[in-house]
Amino acid sequence: MPQRNYRDPVHNIISLDESVPADRLIVDLIDSAEFQRLRRIKQLGLAMYTYQGAEHSRFTHSLGVMHVMTRALELLGSHHPISEESRVVGRAGALLHDLGHGPLSHVVEKVFRFHHEDWTRRIVLDRSTEVNQILRGFDDQLPEKLASLYQHNYTPAFVSQLVSSQLDCDRMDYLLRDSLMTGAKYGMYDLEWVLHALRLDEACDRIYVESKGLFAVEEYLQARYYMFRQVYFHRTLRSAEAVLISALNRARFLIPDGKSRFRTPGSPFEKMLLGEETSTAEYLQLDDTDLAFRIKEWSRDEDEILADLSTRLLHRRLFKAIDVDAGASESFWASAEDIVRRGGFDPQYYLMTDRAADIPYYGDYSPVGVDPKSLIYVETGTGAATREISEVSEVVRGMRAYRIDRVCVPSEVADEVSALIRENLGANGRVE
Amino acid sequence: MPQRNYRDPVHNIISLDESVPADRLIVDLIDSAEFQRLRRIKQLGLAMYTYQGAEHSRFTHSLGVMHVMTRALELLGSHHPISEESRVVGRAGALLHDLGHGPLSHVVEKVFRFHHEDWTRRIVLDRSTEVNQILRGFDDQLPEKLASLYQHNYTPAFVSQLVSSQLDCDRMDYLLRDSLMTGAKYGMYDLEWVLHALRLDEACDRIYVESKGLFAVEEYLQARYYMFRQVYFHRTLRSAEAVLISALNRARFLIPDGKSRFRTPGSPFEKMLLGEETSTAEYLQLDDTDLAFRIKEWSRDEDEILADLSTRLLHRRLFKAIDVDAGASESFWASAEDIVRRGGFDPQYYLMTDRAADIPYYGDYSPVGVDPKSLIYVETGTGAATREISEVSEVVRGMRAYRIDRVCVPSEVADEVSALIRENLGANGRVE
Amino acid sequence: MPQRNYRDPVHNIISLDESVPADRLIVDLIDSAEFQRLRRIKQLGLAMYTYQGAEHSRFTHSLGVMHVMTRALELLGSHHPISEESRVVGRAGALLHDLGHGPLSHVVEKVFRFHHEDWTRRIVLDRSTEVNQILRGFDDQLPEKLASLYQHNYTPAFVSQLVSSQLDCDRMDYLLRDSLMTGAKYGMYDLEWVLHALRLDEACDRIYVESKGLFAVEEYLQARYYMFRQVYFHRTLRSAEAVLISALNRARFLIPDGKSRFRTPGSPFEKMLLGEETSTAEYLQLDDTDLAFRIKEWSRDEDEILADLSTRLLHRRLFKAIDVDAGASESFWASAEDIVRRGGFDPQYYLMTDRAADIPYYGDYSPVGVDPKSLIYVETGTGAATREISEVSEVVRGMRAYRIDRVCVPSEVADEVSALIRENLGANGRVE
Amino acid sequence: MPQRNYRDPVHNIISLDESVPADRLIVDLIDSAEFQRLRRIKQLGLAMYTYQGAEHSRFTHSLGVMHVMTRALELLGSHHPISEESRVVGRAGALLHDLGHGPLSHVVEKVFRFHHEDWTRRIVLDRSTEVNQILRGFDDQLPEKLASLYQHNYTPAFVSQLVSSQLDCDRMDYLLRDSLMTGAKYGMYDLEWVLHALRLDEACDRIYVESKGLFAVEEYLQARYYMFRQVYFHRTLRSAEAVLISALNRARFLIPDGKSRFRTPGSPFEKMLLGEETSTAEYLQLDDTDLAFRIKEWSRDEDEILADLSTRLLHRRLFKAIDVDAGASESFWASAEDIVRRGGFDPQYYLMTDRAADIPYYGDYSPVGVDPKSLIYVETGTGAATREISEVSEVVRGMRAYRIDRVCVPSEVADEVSALIRENLGANGRVE
Repeated sequence: MPQRNYRDPVHNIISLDESVPADRLIVDLIDSAEFQRLRRIKQLGLAMYTYQGAEHSRFTHSLGVMHVMTRALELLGSHHPISEESRVVGRAGALLHDLGHGPLSHVVEKVFRFHHEDWTRRIVLDRSTEVNQILRGFDDQLPEKLASLYQHNYTPAFVSQLVSSQLDCDRMDYLLRDSLMTGAKYGMYDLEWVLHALRLDEACDRIYVESKGLFAVEEYLQARYYMFRQVYFHRTLRSAEAVLISALNRARFLIPDGKSRFRTPGSPFEKMLLGEETSTAEYLQLDDTDLAFRIKEWSRDEDEILADLSTRLLHRRLFKAIDVDAGASESFWASAEDIVRRGGFDPQYYLMTDRAADIPYYGDYSPVGVDPKSLIYVETGTGAATREISEVSEVVRGMRAYRIDRVCVPSEVADEVSALIRENLGANGRVE
Repeated sequence: MPQRNYRDPVHNIISLDESVPADRLIVDLIDSAEFQRLRRIKQLGLAMYTYQGAEHSRFTHSLGVMHVMTRALELLGSHHPISEESRVVGRAGALLHDLGHGPLSHVVEKVFRFHHEDWTRRIVLDRSTEVNQILRGFDDQLPEKLASLYQHNYTPAFVSQLVSSQLDCDRMDYLLRDSLMTGAKYGMYDLEWVLHALRLDEACDRIYVESKGLFAVEEYLQARYYMFRQVYFHRTLRSAEAVLISALNRARFLIPDGKSRFRTPGSPFEKMLLGEETSTAEYLQLDDTDLAFRIKEWSRDEDEILADLSTRLLHRRLFKAIDVDAGASESFWASAEDIVRRGGFDPQYYLMTDRAADIPYYGDYSPVGVDPKSLIYVETGTGAATREISEVSEVVRGMRAYRIDRVCVPSEVADEVSALIRENLGANGRVE
Repeated sequence: MPQRNYRDPVHNIISLDESVPADRLIVDLIDSAEFQRLRRIKQLGLAMYTYQGAEHSRFTHSLGVMHVMTRALELLGSHHPISEESRVVGRAGALLHDLGHGPLSHVVEKVFRFHHEDWTRRIVLDRSTEVNQILRGFDDQLPEKLASLYQHNYTPAFVSQLVSSQLDCDRMDYLLRDSLMTGAKYGMYDLEWVLHALRLDEACDRIYVESKGLFAVEEYLQARYYMFRQVYFHRTLRSAEAVLISALNRARFLIPDGKSRFRTPGSPFEKMLLGEETSTAEYLQLDDTDLAFRIKEWSRDEDEILADLSTRLLHRRLFKAIDVDAGASESFWASAEDIVRRGGFDPQYYLMTDRAADIPYYGDYSPVGVDPKSLIYVETGTGAATREISEVSEVVRGMRAYRIDRVCVPSEVADEVSALIRENLGANGRVE
Repeated sequence: MPQRNYRDPVHNIISLDESVPADRLIVDLIDSAEFQRLRRIKQLGLAMYTYQGAEHSRFTHSLGVMHVMTRALELLGSHHPISEESRVVGRAGALLHDLGHGPLSHVVEKVFRFHHEDWTRRIVLDRSTEVNQILRGFDDQLPEKLASLYQHNYTPAFVSQLVSSQLDCDRMDYLLRDSLMTGAKYGMYDLEWVLHALRLDEACDRIYVESKGLFAVEEYLQARYYMFRQVYFHRTLRSAEAVLISALNRARFLIPDGKSRFRTPGSPFEKMLLGEETSTAEYLQLDDTDLAFRIKEWSRDEDEILADLSTRLLHRRLFKAIDVDAGASESFWASAEDIVRRGGFDPQYYLMTDRAADIPYYGDYSPVGVDPKSLIYVETGTGAATREISEVSEVVRGMRAYRIDRVCVPSEVADEVSALIRENLGANGRVE
């Protein structure tokens, strides 16, 4: 049978017909080495320490995004003419959008200062990758088209909007998937209704939502808002990330001096750790496995700090994350360092701050300072003009950014630091 | 708040009250290093190559089994007196039943010939483990009680039955969980109805199902039957396992001679590979990570066979699994070896057989040759006698064992081997 | 917006595009007076006395059947050429298949000896109905085509098969819907997988299931099997029906003599009750409301038997249904009558038998004595021949007809009748 | 088996143990004639004209409310001492809270100006009802306790709060149930998490939500907000109600003069229609059936207006509902009346206004002018003080009342009235 049916916990059946060239392309891309690598990168990194079920990979999610894109294009296509090329670019673009993620995605990006989007483009454009060859086999310019799609230069622009904007297929999939997997449920919304309500403003080359879909999109934005607060910015997850960052910093400090027993000189992982340039092929050797394996090794390292931090991560003995008011004073930080040091810990690794401002998305929706193409537009009545959603919806305006700073310290000194916060910061310094 | 609420995709909320000693014990066991290790062992091993969503761990499943046990004891307890000790032993036993699993569970067990049940007992009894210390802290004999529970020597016997039998909390959880995660759906059945129908034959010290539950238990058995055929014995999964077994065999062959670049002498993994004795502490260092990491390394090994097999696994270029009649002749095997060899492959690693008889459970239910305590008993009418379910239910008798042998070969020679099977074996040799 | 989106608890969104003529036809048929009448006829009659949630109407179900047909034709159409006419006939046929149902469907049919299928045809063909006019407005021969579809004379025959056979869109919808509404869950199966597996044997003009769908169809048949046993033939439902039948029989006896206070001479209801001919327009005035209203009135009738039976139904004081062996002797019936009479009840109305043989479908699947076109065919391997499913599947052969006779009596005498059964009929006479 | 298991599409199994007196009481109340009557009153009245699946009854809902109350008391009881009496009063109160509803609930109440709450109390207190006798059989003061519970005089007050407040078991059930049945999905929220988060402020005798439950309660309030906008105040539902109100008004006008053919003098229905006093027994004879039956009869009445309005309702040929600004001028109404009259319709029956202010609940949450006991309180941090939710939550403050007036007219003149509105009322007069 020339049909590939993927069973999916969120979308049920994702069906591809290998006798259709556009579907065959998707099948070949899925089977490529670079896409298969996404099986080894978790979608939510360390979130499984908060929601133990959050063990799904970017592979599964990426298939889902491609499926949502296919549905969106089918439904849009029944109202508007959509070219075959737009469909191919949209679906392949959706499938491959996460190709450049590295081990544990966002945390590692932050520490080693790179952007997975850059790597996605690089992998797609690099002629040595299977993905590049498959894309070129279909259309010689397809890699370049995807690269411009990812940079929002592709025309028609609505395709980029479906791949990456405030209402894109990426978020549409991950809210439902992360909700299901975490069991947290906050991300549930009515996907089918949203998809049925999508329309294309052909003059503006822009997606909008027809008036009957307003409530469903409000619900989608609320789902995102809650998922941010309850999952993506969860105290325990952020504290686990703090421990990982400390461990990576410590390893980075030790390795050049040969102070760690567990070295693998010249390996892509060590190159990354030391901030050295990696080739595409080297980068593609990296995945969550490397980190997980090293953490286990480091937990038996001779360096006490590295061993301790790694063991904490391995056995889930995380830091405590305590809320502080955003404008904590210098003297507060000095006192906090003192407490940590007196507890026998090096503040460089055991006193971490977690600032909401470091997170790329806050779960809120705001039109301020944002590319207009990435915003959500809704029809204000049947056949009426479209407007940006926050102009129309009080509910959307009611979802304010949730910005809170936190300090993460070992539980051994958490009570003392909490007391300090209460003293210094008054009633607003919430301690939980 | 002294309450721990785990969110679970299958059971929704798993709630533990830390102010209650029995719940506190469960919390402490969950937080132990040995139990946290289960996060790093996938429940379904390589099944994610067939059903990409099957990425969940034994940690998540074990929590679920404990929860089902808690519900079962609560509901049973409203009809029968159940001692506090039975409850503690049942719940802790359910939680820890998978503690002894190694990397990729069943496949590795098969290659290295050990039983995870033995390791579960050893970990529970070994005074150096956190789990043992926590159990002893609650009741000095608790480790021994669990060990006897796992060996079906514990009294009352119905507690063992709930931990391990044809209708145990383990299966009750994994059918639903594997169904949800794979998206295959075949394992859905009405858990709540089954649990409500459980009763205790106090005279026989045996669980039975009251008459209103018969249909629900039939449905449960069918769920198991289909999950076996569609998931646990799926052609692609079995072929992925064949590739892994070949890779492990090749590594085992190379390592003693120092022929592999990627050696870690003295490591628990290498000890396991070489069949050397490992201590409990060494065994507990092992998890899926080790295998995943090695496979990546081996894929760049100088040995062509090891590199090829590892790359196939890494990029999901699996063997083809072809059905053969169980009684294939010597000459058939000789011809098959010939084809594989002519294709440029060493039959020792590239011609694998997969016999249904190697699988511990077939998905069918049969009372023949089985410990009576592990069978399912149902009430034949309200207040009437109980009988073993296959005596009562035609549906159960209709579920026959599904035994099929397969040969797994590289896709490069699959057509030729298929042709050979068709020639030699006639109409019954199915090729799919 | 020219789009009609029906929200459905089973299928989520049922979308019709009024700018497409074939969809416009469906919309017009839904809006017809005859179709709107189906809102007033419950899908499961008195089953709500067993499963209180079973309150859904044939309107909702019929929309669902049309939707399943649309999906089936879409998916089939991606593998086989299907004419526009076949699609129209299939979808309109699916939508209207239950149009001829009367009040409380099957029970009333049985008492007044008519077939709703005859009425469906008559309503479709009668030029005075809105449905007929709408159909003719689309295609002058459409009413006749539907009539021949319902009589299995329509070509291509596979369309009839989808409307009415062992694997038709009617059952595919009602199993899921009745499952959801009753909360009984036994009717759940994987609809999408079944639909994806449908294929057309163009040579034989016959639907079959491709090999990957075998398990899903087995599951569907089991769903049907359990729904029959647990819902459609549930003891309480059948006993409620027995009370209703007695009440109708009593009313039928009283009315000609003017003995009932609550007469509406010449009304369609009274015509039906008296077995007089009704016109199509008169028949279409009837629905569940008539029966419900009369039962309330009759509960205050001067005739004690009519008042008592109606009150029992109104307040759910039903008979007890007791299993008897199929071959109960004459003397048993004589003794039972005696008991009922001694209890102060007229056996003609208070001793009812419920024979499994009276039920049109038993939930089992048997190829014996059945039109071959109505059977289920499956492919025996990818690209292999198709065979009738019971030849292939042990599971299907294992589902045997469930035939049990019951006697229904007032609870006041139920214990005595039960004792009689136990005495006379031995161990097999189950009493529950 | 002394156990009653109700299967429920929302809550799965509702289990009652007849050997426990408090459960036995609930079973007996369910079996009473007055409670069985709720099977014949739809939960959402005419909403099935908008969401065809909305066919469920108050019987099903009331069972659900009792179940939610049982769960709430169980969970609360694990944190706080709750007396046996409070449990009995809470559960019986929850079960019976809708007992006084009449045909089509709110619409009929509005036309005939009575309150179902008054009837609930009257039925509970009237010694002639089965419900009263059952309650007194358990505790002679139970009817009075329930009456005071419904009037918020019962102590402890938290029990009343669970029966009727902004966060009560009634709403908790109906949001989920109406969501499921309509298929609209907007009312889904995480019931279990809300229930787990309930706590009792024993000093204030008041329920509050512990801090971890804040998001879940926000989600619950949003669910309510959307259900109001999308279901309970849906344009089509409101227009169906307008037609019904006109029909009832016309019947009320005709009957005293004997102008309707279909009279049933002295019947409870006619008493209600004529505004005459009915006894409890007479009131209890009324249900949806009466209205449905009369509408069918009236559709064949000699009076053209009554026949037309009834036929519109019967065949779902409803009015069009058009939004108008709240402060429409006198001259607007004069012109609208003119248009309707010129179309051949009597404005008294064919020009209806639907004011948002007529609806008891708007879906928004506001603490202004509301009994403090009915508000929602949340803990502001673990162990911190509790505050009224709108003080704490921007999301809650963001949900503003949705007040829109509408005019309902026959579709024959709808375009002309729409044009009038656009002319007179400017851009804000939305027409959809």
